[in-house]
Amino acid sequence: MDPLRTICAEPLDQASGVPLYQQLKLRIMGLIASHSIDEATPLPPESRICEELGLSRSTVRRCFQDLVEEGRVVRRRGKGTFVARYQLGATSDVAMNFSARVEALGKVPTSKILSFRQVPATGTLRERLRLAEGEPVWEVRRLRLADGVPMETNKACVPVRFCPGLTRERLSRSLYSSIAEDSGLLPAYEDAYVDAIVLDSAEAKALGQRRGAPAMRVVRTTFDAQMVPFEVAVLVRRADANRLHLRLGPEGSTVALENS
Amino acid sequence: MDPLRTICAEPLDQASGVPLYQQLKLRIMGLIASHSIDEATPLPPESRICEELGLSRSTVRRCFQDLVEEGRVVRRRGKGTFVARYQLGATSDVAMNFSARVEALGKVPTSKILSFRQVPATGTLRERLRLAEGEPVWEVRRLRLADGVPMETNKACVPVRFCPGLTRERLSRSLYSSIAEDSGLLPAYEDAYVDAIVLDSAEAKALGQRRGAPAMRVVRTTFDAQMVPFEVAVLVRRADANRLHLRLGPEGSTVALENS
Repeated sequence: MDPLRTICAEPLDQASGVPLYQQLKLRIMGLIASHSIDEATPLPPESRICEELGLSRSTVRRCFQDLVEEGRVVRRRGKGTFVARYQLGATSDVAMNFSARVEALGKVPTSKILSFRQVPATGTLRERLRLAEGEPVWEVRRLRLADGVPMETNKACVPVRFCPGLTRERLSRSLYSSIAEDSGLLPAYEDAYVDAIVLDSAEAKALGQRRGAPAMRVVRTTFDAQMVPFEVAVLVRRADANRLHLRLGPEGSTVALENS
Repeated sequence: MDPLRTICAEPLDQASGVPLYQQLKLRIMGLIASHSIDEATPLPPESRICEELGLSRSTVRRCFQDLVEEGRVVRRRGKGTFVARYQLGATSDVAMNFSARVEALGKVPTSKILSFRQVPATGTLRERLRLAEGEPVWEVRRLRLADGVPMETNKACVPVRFCPGLTRERLSRSLYSSIAEDSGLLPAYEDAYVDAIVLDSAEAKALGQRRGAPAMRVVRTTFDAQMVPFEVAVLVRRADANRLHLRLGPEGSTVALENS
């Protein structure tokens, strides 16, 4: 994905009440959230963004100044502006989104939306997302595929107020990008429980497995850098294609999801 | 477990070719490996160990001096000598041995030895333990129980040269303590793969589950502080009683095994 094209695909909304520098900022945060740019690749130069979007230098400068001050990007003299390492979120690649992980294996990630609706937050979902009883939440069920082969089902719940403009079309790109574009929230922390289950009929059918086959289940809450929880997801991963790799030691631990 | 009693349960072997300070040192390392003493509890005073084992002050002093210089224990002025935090191994309690984890829940851990034999190292086991082809390895299969309820099966393989004097009796206490007592190796790092499986008939019977029930499998290599691999273990844990808790963030990750 070309970052310049992603940022400048559509003109900004001159009629919106949201200042142009702020609109641009949310687009860049969406790009960061999509994990389609790493910390070694410079963001497009400010001058190119000015040209493509027909913005003044001062608007683009204000946007980048904000991103620098918030610690989301860093300037390196003579090299350009880069996504801050910290903003790439959890060090572990469990955190890395499905697409980035599959692409790293040289495969093509796709996603099929199984259902997409609003539901009222109740019970543990409400508690985990710290919402008022009944506050509306997007509930998105997706099947994630690698080279067309089903790998995991994902049921994600996100408060509507963090992504009011979510659509099927935006979802088909990236949920995290949509959230970042709408509200500036980027994933930084995860709290996840992993256990082993056997697939019921519906899950087995979705994943192209037989009923009773083993699977790894992850129940995950995702937080931004200020520890605001903004997503609860249940992931069911085929056991024959996924394993966790833990490296533990006195200096710290790493956790990686590997496709076996 | 009273540390003084553990260390001084039996007299040292005066006739052995191993110096007394070295014998005492290995006993203390066995105590550390058993996880029965934490970093907040002082080791028994040198004077008490002298009395109990009938050793000279200089022998005990030499032992403690060595432990301090190797970074295994630290002296705190006016408070005593404590196990160095580093020596307690991986920060994660996946590393914590089964007994310590179960005791922390207020339950009584027990272990049943299912088999205990020597086998020649071959294939991936040989590679993981960096052994010569055919080098002898202890293969120990155990069932671990909490309050008498089967929780996991554990097949551990340890090079015989790291624990030449292993017996069923010593195994019934702690495998890691036996290794530390025989060769001074303490667990510091783990490299583990976790996946989901369904139990076959034999595993299901051992764990008191039905065949086809889900389980979490861990294949783990354990290293000492110098990255010498000294154990490869396969753990099969009942899914209904075990889950992993992952906390991931830009400052680092923690992994905890929780009994659910």
